[in-house]
Amino acid sequence: MAAGYQPLKSVDVLEEETRPPPRSRRLIYGVFFIFATAALSAYYAVPPDVDDEPLKQCASGLPPHATPPAPVNPWASLTVLETVAIADWLDAPERALNLTPGSRVSIADNFIYHIGAFRPAKADALFYLDDPSAHGPPDRYARVTIHHGAAAEPYVQDYLIGPLPIDGKTGIRELTEVYHRDAIPYNARGYTTLAEINPILTDIMPSLAEATKELFDGVALGLPNDTLVAGAVGPLSFDGTFRRTWINWRRNVPGLWLHPVGFFLYIDMSGTDPREWRLLKIVYNHQVFDSVEEFMTAFHGGSLKRLPKRPDSKDVEWTSRTRPDTTPRDLDHLPGPRAVSFAGLRFRVDRATQYISWMGWGMYLGFDRDMGLSLWDIRFKGERLIYELAPQEAIAQYAGNDPMQSSTAWLDRYFGMGGSVRDMLPGYDCPHEAVFLPATTHGFTGSVTRQRAICIFEHDTGRPITRHMGYSQGEFGAVKGYVLVVRSISTVGNYDYLFDYIFQLDGTIEVKLSASGYLQGGFWESTQEGYGTAIRDTTMGSLHDHVINFKVDLDIAGPKNSLLFTNTAQEEVSQPWFEDDWGSTVLQQKITRKIIENENDALLRYPQNFQGGYALVNTEALNRWGIARGYAVHPGYSPIYNTVVGSKRLLNNANWARYNLAVSRRKETEPSSSSMWNQNLPGAPMVDFHKFFDGENITQEDLVAWINVGMHHLPQAEDAPNTRTNLATSSFFLTPLNYFDEDISMDALNAILLAPPERPGDAWTYEDYGVKAVHCVPPAVPPFEYVGVEAYGLDGRPAPPESADEMRKGAEMYHRIKLEL
Amino acid sequence: MAAGYQPLKSVDVLEEETRPPPRSRRLIYGVFFIFATAALSAYYAVPPDVDDEPLKQCASGLPPHATPPAPVNPWASLTVLETVAIADWLDAPERALNLTPGSRVSIADNFIYHIGAFRPAKADALFYLDDPSAHGPPDRYARVTIHHGAAAEPYVQDYLIGPLPIDGKTGIRELTEVYHRDAIPYNARGYTTLAEINPILTDIMPSLAEATKELFDGVALGLPNDTLVAGAVGPLSFDGTFRRTWINWRRNVPGLWLHPVGFFLYIDMSGTDPREWRLLKIVYNHQVFDSVEEFMTAFHGGSLKRLPKRPDSKDVEWTSRTRPDTTPRDLDHLPGPRAVSFAGLRFRVDRATQYISWMGWGMYLGFDRDMGLSLWDIRFKGERLIYELAPQEAIAQYAGNDPMQSSTAWLDRYFGMGGSVRDMLPGYDCPHEAVFLPATTHGFTGSVTRQRAICIFEHDTGRPITRHMGYSQGEFGAVKGYVLVVRSISTVGNYDYLFDYIFQLDGTIEVKLSASGYLQGGFWESTQEGYGTAIRDTTMGSLHDHVINFKVDLDIAGPKNSLLFTNTAQEEVSQPWFEDDWGSTVLQQKITRKIIENENDALLRYPQNFQGGYALVNTEALNRWGIARGYAVHPGYSPIYNTVVGSKRLLNNANWARYNLAVSRRKETEPSSSSMWNQNLPGAPMVDFHKFFDGENITQEDLVAWINVGMHHLPQAEDAPNTRTNLATSSFFLTPLNYFDEDISMDALNAILLAPPERPGDAWTYEDYGVKAVHCVPPAVPPFEYVGVEAYGLDGRPAPPESADEMRKGAEMYHRIKLEL
Repeated sequence: MAAGYQPLKSVDVLEEETRPPPRSRRLIYGVFFIFATAALSAYYAVPPDVDDEPLKQCASGLPPHATPPAPVNPWASLTVLETVAIADWLDAPERALNLTPGSRVSIADNFIYHIGAFRPAKADALFYLDDPSAHGPPDRYARVTIHHGAAAEPYVQDYLIGPLPIDGKTGIRELTEVYHRDAIPYNARGYTTLAEINPILTDIMPSLAEATKELFDGVALGLPNDTLVAGAVGPLSFDGTFRRTWINWRRNVPGLWLHPVGFFLYIDMSGTDPREWRLLKIVYNHQVFDSVEEFMTAFHGGSLKRLPKRPDSKDVEWTSRTRPDTTPRDLDHLPGPRAVSFAGLRFRVDRATQYISWMGWGMYLGFDRDMGLSLWDIRFKGERLIYELAPQEAIAQYAGNDPMQSSTAWLDRYFGMGGSVRDMLPGYDCPHEAVFLPATTHGFTGSVTRQRAICIFEHDTGRPITRHMGYSQGEFGAVKGYVLVVRSISTVGNYDYLFDYIFQLDGTIEVKLSASGYLQGGFWESTQEGYGTAIRDTTMGSLHDHVINFKVDLDIAGPKNSLLFTNTAQEEVSQPWFEDDWGSTVLQQKITRKIIENENDALLRYPQNFQGGYALVNTEALNRWGIARGYAVHPGYSPIYNTVVGSKRLLNNANWARYNLAVSRRKETEPSSSSMWNQNLPGAPMVDFHKFFDGENITQEDLVAWINVGMHHLPQAEDAPNTRTNLATSSFFLTPLNYFDEDISMDALNAILLAPPERPGDAWTYEDYGVKAVHCVPPAVPPFEYVGVEAYGLDGRPAPPESADEMRKGAEMYHRIKLEL
Repeated sequence: MAAGYQPLKSVDVLEEETRPPPRSRRLIYGVFFIFATAALSAYYAVPPDVDDEPLKQCASGLPPHATPPAPVNPWASLTVLETVAIADWLDAPERALNLTPGSRVSIADNFIYHIGAFRPAKADALFYLDDPSAHGPPDRYARVTIHHGAAAEPYVQDYLIGPLPIDGKTGIRELTEVYHRDAIPYNARGYTTLAEINPILTDIMPSLAEATKELFDGVALGLPNDTLVAGAVGPLSFDGTFRRTWINWRRNVPGLWLHPVGFFLYIDMSGTDPREWRLLKIVYNHQVFDSVEEFMTAFHGGSLKRLPKRPDSKDVEWTSRTRPDTTPRDLDHLPGPRAVSFAGLRFRVDRATQYISWMGWGMYLGFDRDMGLSLWDIRFKGERLIYELAPQEAIAQYAGNDPMQSSTAWLDRYFGMGGSVRDMLPGYDCPHEAVFLPATTHGFTGSVTRQRAICIFEHDTGRPITRHMGYSQGEFGAVKGYVLVVRSISTVGNYDYLFDYIFQLDGTIEVKLSASGYLQGGFWESTQEGYGTAIRDTTMGSLHDHVINFKVDLDIAGPKNSLLFTNTAQEEVSQPWFEDDWGSTVLQQKITRKIIENENDALLRYPQNFQGGYALVNTEALNRWGIARGYAVHPGYSPIYNTVVGSKRLLNNANWARYNLAVSRRKETEPSSSSMWNQNLPGAPMVDFHKFFDGENITQEDLVAWINVGMHHLPQAEDAPNTRTNLATSSFFLTPLNYFDEDISMDALNAILLAPPERPGDAWTYEDYGVKAVHCVPPAVPPFEYVGVEAYGLDGRPAPPESADEMRKGAEMYHRIKLEL
């Protein structure tokens, strides 16, 4: 398209456009665009007298079409129909997998747990991207996880199936080379909505009802009006030899996370036979009981030391997001400022390939069940900077003086950060102008498509990226600080993670993660002092650390890069030119630059006081001034690592969290720093990050930076009802370091250059490069609407919509187990 | 005003409104507002059919009027006429000051260097603010700095003059109680545009012309077409016993800061008699010469080791902000998104008192020559949080292998961060919707008013401040993340400092400082390795640290507060409830909370890995959950302190820079952590920050937090032509810490609450509190215009506008000394 102006359309068309237009319609638009562009160009060239005619409509809110460098996105997710074909193929008798359909399965059956795209080898993808007209895209494979619950020794197995589409050449093999142990123990298997904790609890809880009713004013009998619900914590296992969890009881009210009652059961649910599952312990008010009988005896006998009853047992409003009934703030009845691209959006989107481009940036989007949104083949000004930018894992390790909080170390990949992505709210989660893209994930009962899984918008930071006020020719001016934001929000039970990828005009990317949602609250009593803060009479916010790891496969001026450590320190030097007025020496800083040559030395923390830092450089590609071109990892908000080291519950399954970042040689066998099973295998994880660091040389090799963001969360009253994103935010920058010869953002047209007047007192002259604010009638904001997900059954056909309760069960998983008889 | 809607006005009226309306006009507007409000309310209540009538005009871009808590701003600057009256009074014979008017003065005269408002004692201001209807505002005083250049032993003296206005009761006394030494040595005096360095250089440089012409292709003869200009560096003195500087020669081209030629002169200009000033040393390519003769002998004799000639001696384009002649980026010919408050601005401004309010926040603005914008009596939801929030000082300490960079330690208060504030560029420095406020500062030759010294705007951060996706009633919703930004930009020679104060809905303030502008570049040759990076053939960016100190006089639930240190560390504890599966102990975090009781222990760095932090709390004011109400100092971007400790050039004049923050008992005798004379008195400063910390108890006392932002600047190619604000940014948050009982931002109306549909598959229902996007025709953006400052002579009458060269001389000070015969 010649330029970015858009045809004028009604709101209806705009709404319809949130689904990808068929090819024919796109063609018509294309022709329309050309005419519209011409017309609008003419309009702006010769603006009509405003008094004479009514103001024109602005360009529509549709993004112009992007042209991806290759017509196939090698990292695209599987379609629903692809997963159906794969499942059918696996189900064929010759595969002999003895599968039961996920729609009527128990944990003692064999079934397909998950089907997802397996990303191609980097070499294959680059071979295609380097000349897409000459080569076909790389072969497409699926990664399929099968729960072999019916095996004599039940286990989980990952398989590679392909090439796709299914035909005579399609094969299957076990996928093991990406893991550090062969077998995935069944006790470490992924979460399902299948009955698991339920049977034992429905067995136990009625016997405890008399006590829970009196102590907590609640019961859990498996009836619809149950007033208590259970939450389980992980890890469920150390090495796969058992599957056990602490159950924490909460009031069954909105914001239940903040309504623990202080009652804990330790249960064993190892193996697949519910008859072997058992209650191990009951804990209440620091008293430990080995059985229901023992607890009830103490309860009846009066020896039970009770927690004081306090006023908030009926107090539920405070954990709701319902607006308090207070006087609104001054002028808050008016909508706040809203960004409008009066001349049309300036970023391009190709919905078919999920490719986007903006101001010299271009990238493909990927999406998967484990971690959601990922970015691929990120190029700036025609050069590839990043092959893959993808979150890997999110840990949350708690502390407390109760069995639940002191036992919790979540790895949220287990729950599926991608599967937990929810539709975003236009105008609230993303600006009204944002363009939304869909994502589809596949589970054992079918597939789900979320139309607003990803949003993309250009954002005015409200500040110049560079500016100076000077009096010489060319010294005075500013470049406007626009950025492109790509966002996805994952709600993993109580927490909402906002993933932001922020692209800037100078080649900088800020990767920013923010959290909101509910705390995993604890029961507050005085012995919890030191482990958090009382945020209500009997609720505390519990101390915990979040650390989230990103894989950043940087390719700086090519795939072969080195790791540069820059450090500054104080020195005292003498100089011949000093007088005795100041002494003959000077104390000053000096930079030391060092290439870190071995992987083992590349497990890194930011230097004290951030005196220096780390960068990936290409020592064989120099900029014009002879400096190795590089990209620095620059700390942003809250550049922290995990506080606790050596906890058994996080022993070896998240060792990346001990550092701010680490750099390893890129390998196809090390695609990720974690796996969904790492949650339940701290002692013997499927992916043991430290094993990536095996003494290899990392100079001028293809390197991956594993970079963390995180937050030490010391909760406070203001975490209720939900944590605020403004403080619960962490980020890092990937930013050019002598990558260019000068600041590249100086080429912006949304900029101004001023010159002093020749005659003192006159206005200054200026050059605005022809870019002026456009005056026109912006399109109306479509009425707000929020529709649920699009669900598909195992047959690939649209599934009937679920009730809120069903959705909730799938969404809240171990966090809210409502008993069912 | 009943509501915030604004009358519809033409662009002309809007433009006119940037000056405060007279009372009568305001009354007319008031009446108009009421009608307009009624009309617009009716319009939004019953929206007309869009097809039937043309779209309405939006509200104007004018801010609604604010109602300050008291009608007088106790921290207001002096007016021009007030300064004239003070100067006249001082000039009266009975004062016997023997003053010479600044317009025709030499440094050997007595003259008024500066007149500014002296802020009232806190007790006096609070007495007034507590009941402004009962008490008059505190007496008003001026602080006047007089250069006693004609004294036998020349000195500088600060005086207090008042009460104002001048009448029979007005008196004068020396102001000494805020300083740690009595006398301000004349050798440490403030910068003036008066001839000082010029005489000695015009004497020396012609004798060197033959050499500079050959070596640097330039001369400095004091002629208009001089091709070399001088820059001087500070500190000029250690303790006031001398006044000396290294002169660095640069090419006289745009962006001269990046064109050093590598030629240095050390000169002595102690005292007031130019005949005693002398050249001490010449340094070129690491060779030291004691005189011009010695240098010229070596030059002629061939013993001078010359620097290689390299290609950029004629290369000047790269230091200009002129857009490079490259293909524009895709769609950059379109203006980017622009924020519009379609229903009118939501912040209020009272121009008369410079009081602003937004969403429960309210504050007065102050402005002074030394540090520019300051904020006073910041209240949120009716409670005072901060009495004073004001920058104090900005250091920039350099390193290098040449006399200039290794000798530079700037304290920019010396140059006047307020006096160096420049008019901002609408649409570039601040969004188009921003409201600009003026500021006036006074110098020895007159006064200057900048109409766009401060800008205020509401900004959509593009993300919710809280959100959660849940399925229970009240769990699903979001609050939009609006903030109010108050900004001022100070251009101190080469650097532009962007001061942002960002107010958030939950009571959080982010104080953010960003830098742009030119590096103070050095001459690049290989021995500079370690002190920076080559950014051109013969130019380097020199290693330096910026640290900027803010005074934050927090009053948390009253003036009496304590300093809380929170720290987390790993512990191993055993618990009776563990099974042998995981072992009987757990490794986890634990919080230690400690009140720091003594000032001497309150010189603070953030804990390692940010495990905990600092807060001001009121141990006598508990929130509803029994926790001391507090505000935390939360690190933001680049939370660093100064690297070099103990340098003679920064020995005791900026000791605050050794820490991330410090907390001292508030005293009227310790109003600031620095003074303008600290620049030149590192060995014996006027304000010695460490002397604030004299062992006093700081529990439940009125406390001040002195908080730093900063940046280790390791320059890179991308710093040319100007440093980018996105990376050169540092901030801290002041944020409620159990100050409230819950998150207060939940009361926002710009929010949404959703509930799942009763019938599966239906759209979700929602409550938007009646706040919807407004569809209307926004006001046109006024044409860009940039007019220079409004200057006033010593008589208070408008002064003739200055030429660009004159303005430049006043603005660039020691940074660009063009010789004048």
